[in-house]
Amino acid sequence: MLRTHTCGELRLSNNNETITLTGWVQKSRDLGGMTFVDLRDRYGITQLAFNMDNNADLCARARKLGREFVLKVTGTVKERESKNLNMQTGEIEISVTDFDVLNESITPPFTIEENTDGGDDIRMKYRYLDLRRASVRANLQLRHKVAQQTRNFLDLQDFIEVETPVLIKSTPEGARDFVVPSRMNPGEFYALPQSPQTFKQLLMISGFDRYYQIVKCFRDEDLRADRQPEFTQIDCEMSFVEQEDILNMFEGLVKHLFKNVKGIDIESLPRMTYADAMKYYGSDKPDTRFEMKFVEVNDVVKGKDFPVFDNAELVVGICAKGCAEYTRKQLDELTDFVKRPQIGATGLVYARVNADGTIKSSVDKFYDEAALKLWAERFNAQPGDLILLLAGQADKTRKALNELRLEMGTRLGLRDKNTFSCLWVVDFPLLEFNEEDNRYFAMHHPFTSPKPEDIHLLNSFETLGQVRANAYDMVINGVEVGGGSVRIFNKDLQARMFEVLGFTAEEAQHQFGFLMDAFQYGAPPHAGIAFGFDRLCSLFGGADSIRDFIAFPKNNSGRDIMIDAPSTIDEKQLKELSIKTTV
Amino acid sequence: MLRTHTCGELRLSNNNETITLTGWVQKSRDLGGMTFVDLRDRYGITQLAFNMDNNADLCARARKLGREFVLKVTGTVKERESKNLNMQTGEIEISVTDFDVLNESITPPFTIEENTDGGDDIRMKYRYLDLRRASVRANLQLRHKVAQQTRNFLDLQDFIEVETPVLIKSTPEGARDFVVPSRMNPGEFYALPQSPQTFKQLLMISGFDRYYQIVKCFRDEDLRADRQPEFTQIDCEMSFVEQEDILNMFEGLVKHLFKNVKGIDIESLPRMTYADAMKYYGSDKPDTRFEMKFVEVNDVVKGKDFPVFDNAELVVGICAKGCAEYTRKQLDELTDFVKRPQIGATGLVYARVNADGTIKSSVDKFYDEAALKLWAERFNAQPGDLILLLAGQADKTRKALNELRLEMGTRLGLRDKNTFSCLWVVDFPLLEFNEEDNRYFAMHHPFTSPKPEDIHLLNSFETLGQVRANAYDMVINGVEVGGGSVRIFNKDLQARMFEVLGFTAEEAQHQFGFLMDAFQYGAPPHAGIAFGFDRLCSLFGGADSIRDFIAFPKNNSGRDIMIDAPSTIDEKQLKELSIKTTV
Repeated sequence: MLRTHTCGELRLSNNNETITLTGWVQKSRDLGGMTFVDLRDRYGITQLAFNMDNNADLCARARKLGREFVLKVTGTVKERESKNLNMQTGEIEISVTDFDVLNESITPPFTIEENTDGGDDIRMKYRYLDLRRASVRANLQLRHKVAQQTRNFLDLQDFIEVETPVLIKSTPEGARDFVVPSRMNPGEFYALPQSPQTFKQLLMISGFDRYYQIVKCFRDEDLRADRQPEFTQIDCEMSFVEQEDILNMFEGLVKHLFKNVKGIDIESLPRMTYADAMKYYGSDKPDTRFEMKFVEVNDVVKGKDFPVFDNAELVVGICAKGCAEYTRKQLDELTDFVKRPQIGATGLVYARVNADGTIKSSVDKFYDEAALKLWAERFNAQPGDLILLLAGQADKTRKALNELRLEMGTRLGLRDKNTFSCLWVVDFPLLEFNEEDNRYFAMHHPFTSPKPEDIHLLNSFETLGQVRANAYDMVINGVEVGGGSVRIFNKDLQARMFEVLGFTAEEAQHQFGFLMDAFQYGAPPHAGIAFGFDRLCSLFGGADSIRDFIAFPKNNSGRDIMIDAPSTIDEKQLKELSIKTTV
Repeated sequence: MLRTHTCGELRLSNNNETITLTGWVQKSRDLGGMTFVDLRDRYGITQLAFNMDNNADLCARARKLGREFVLKVTGTVKERESKNLNMQTGEIEISVTDFDVLNESITPPFTIEENTDGGDDIRMKYRYLDLRRASVRANLQLRHKVAQQTRNFLDLQDFIEVETPVLIKSTPEGARDFVVPSRMNPGEFYALPQSPQTFKQLLMISGFDRYYQIVKCFRDEDLRADRQPEFTQIDCEMSFVEQEDILNMFEGLVKHLFKNVKGIDIESLPRMTYADAMKYYGSDKPDTRFEMKFVEVNDVVKGKDFPVFDNAELVVGICAKGCAEYTRKQLDELTDFVKRPQIGATGLVYARVNADGTIKSSVDKFYDEAALKLWAERFNAQPGDLILLLAGQADKTRKALNELRLEMGTRLGLRDKNTFSCLWVVDFPLLEFNEEDNRYFAMHHPFTSPKPEDIHLLNSFETLGQVRANAYDMVINGVEVGGGSVRIFNKDLQARMFEVLGFTAEEAQHQFGFLMDAFQYGAPPHAGIAFGFDRLCSLFGGADSIRDFIAFPKNNSGRDIMIDAPSTIDEKQLKELSIKTTV
């Protein structure tokens, strides 16, 4: 090793020891008689001291060191005169006796500091410099820790990590696949897995009993903010279990992670049906860090000649505690907020419950004090509270109110990133109707088991939408961090499922024949779950974006601008692969 | 859980407990009054007993159970009358009170037993059934354990596991890349990484200090036996180290793995220069489980009018202990062996050292007893030994003698799969001349550092072949399980290296510009290594093939015959990707 210690290691107990450090010049200060250089490595920062009186030549050389120069420094550990107790090494400094410049650095395009002066684009292009910043490195260290603790937990529960293949077969169902032309099989393509779904089911059929994998998956989607074409999953599957067993096992995992990564004790996860989540939060991933549940008020608001409410399928609202004092301007802001096209409400009705118990609404013309009292009762609104109502088509209105609820939660400071509220959302619908294609799609995927008591509803097109699945999502702070289902393990039911999804028997056989075949040889009951690992890490890190938790992320066009990928390839390569580009 | 215990768990101490097991029917025996069924899961096998006298209906149902049916069985643990102490559960059986068939099975295409009747092809097609066999599952459990122990060791040494991207940029140097057309960037392609080499170097430049990753890599090569298009590496890199540090660290890893996976204590790894490996073993990956070193004898065999030796650049041989009694037929076999085209020797000269000390050779015409005594001395041959000599062009002759040495090692039982001999081969040449292209290629890769004392040899084309690299391979039992190098961390030296390899400045910039740029911002000295994880696991498992240590391997045409990949994709997909096939 070129060093004897790291830059985060030395303490007063090392006083007077002769040591050697290596690292990067964080900054230097020339105070005339003394020059101080902060030397940085992954482990911390140590102050180097050069004294003009002791060694003028060395001090003169030190004064010429630029930011990010790489040094090897030998010296003696000394107690500092003015200690910095905010730094782990802040009680000591190194009285340098000699140093080598291992490598120089030209001036970096942005400062390697917490509040860097670099914008997103420049930091992405020089990602290797951005990764030198302590907070970015801390994110990746957190990621490592989450992976370690995940493995620790699952290993102890007898799960086996099995690597499934990356070069697999394209299946048109679901999102778009990335494909890989096969040189040895001209005209044919591999696909990169969107998940190891079928392989983990095959492993269950193989008797592996408990499988997991922290694994890269790929989706060729138009990238919305904070989606990456390659992402990482904690992928798990168990045999001989029921839904309850999966919920308990992975509740255990999440508690273990909170405890061992964040030092936080999480209580048992409440469970909410999909139906309730939609009814009370307008979302299948409710942020339950705060209450502000939806209250449906059709029965108390209709029939008062207010056409907006009378004509609405649903009138539903929330009660914002302590917001009765909102100004006209603030209320206008909220109205503008809900009227934005991506939210799509036509307007916002409010009612303030004043300190004296009187109620003032934006629709006083239609509702007298007695009527408004009924509103307040329904919302359990107290003096000082603000009732906010939306009206319209039920699904759309709930969706819009969900956005308003989250906005109010944010405004009221109820969405603290260091507070965590976890729950299971269960009993998802099995199928989702797509108007455009005029057919049902699997809400999770085609291998999800319907609830046994709902299987008969698969027999008629009219009742398909009512079939509930043994499917579940884990939601933390309004983010879906994991989801899974009990799987179909019966060939006939799986065939029926493919039929419902509009596959011909031939298509089902062509694409999933190996799985259908496998079901014939003693498939066990099995169920599983997958967690979005990038998202889980960003949540643990208290961040909004997953990008900061990925070492080398791609931008919104799927480009790695540091290495400049994707890029053109030469004709020889294309020819060998038996393909041509058409641009 | 559908079960209370696993099939490997119950012991006499559970006697009389009521339990529930789940698993597969391994086999059943109908003994008239009693029917016994062996129930199998991942954890073991438990015997189920059905008694005609106690419950005739149940017993009758049990008799109809086919192989691989999936059962849920409830009963009472009972001490067996005739114990089977070869089985962990062999002291007990389950007196069954009830069972459910969770799933039936049609007759599997081969028997799920150690000595299965299934051939390779059928077992690959039904891989999910092959994986039910205990030995195949044990291989994958071993793999999991090797991964766990690797992580344990590296985590304790402060390495951070960082995921590097899978969708990267194609570089024509090295093996062929698999490529992925980008839909969002028409006409452009990602490549799948042959290794995370450049990314791990960037992580060192980022100050990550110690990195590892157990990671999938991809090479589109014509598949020789036992190569896979996707394979797994233990990929590692360290900063502020010298070669010695890497050798010590990863010697530590391998000792840890042998200790914790195999229960074997490994001594410190000897080091052998590449030059010595070639001189004494004719291979850069010598199998050192046995000696039988090469002995060069030009000085004692030439000038005796035997033209084959007189005209040869090199006469070199081995001494096979105790083989003097080899029959004419055995010697002819060896001669045929070395004359096979893939080995390419023109003939084999032998000399037997008889029990009475006389020596009899195949070239007695040219060498008298006194001359042959000299041979015996050089080989330190004792009575009963057999000297085998090859002659010809030096490199080719060494290569052929390497094959003969391995063959003799096998014949003499010196290559026991449960004996392990590890070493480091060091001081590899930096460059390798390719006659066909009339240029030098990097023996490891273009980022490998020359030995500082040899850098001046880079200045002349004539001396390029003499430059030694700070590169090293770990060899176990004649298999290269890992290799790496100290890296270049200086932009100018890296530029010179690209120049030597025939890159124009533009090509170097186009392909590796980001790395060359990164070198300008304070790159630290760094070095690394990568281990072939599949190979390491197969070695630990005492197997020759890596395929048995991969859950879902591909065949020699790169096909997964179970899922039938690669396959054609539809026109819509091709069109979206802006490509056409040309077949």
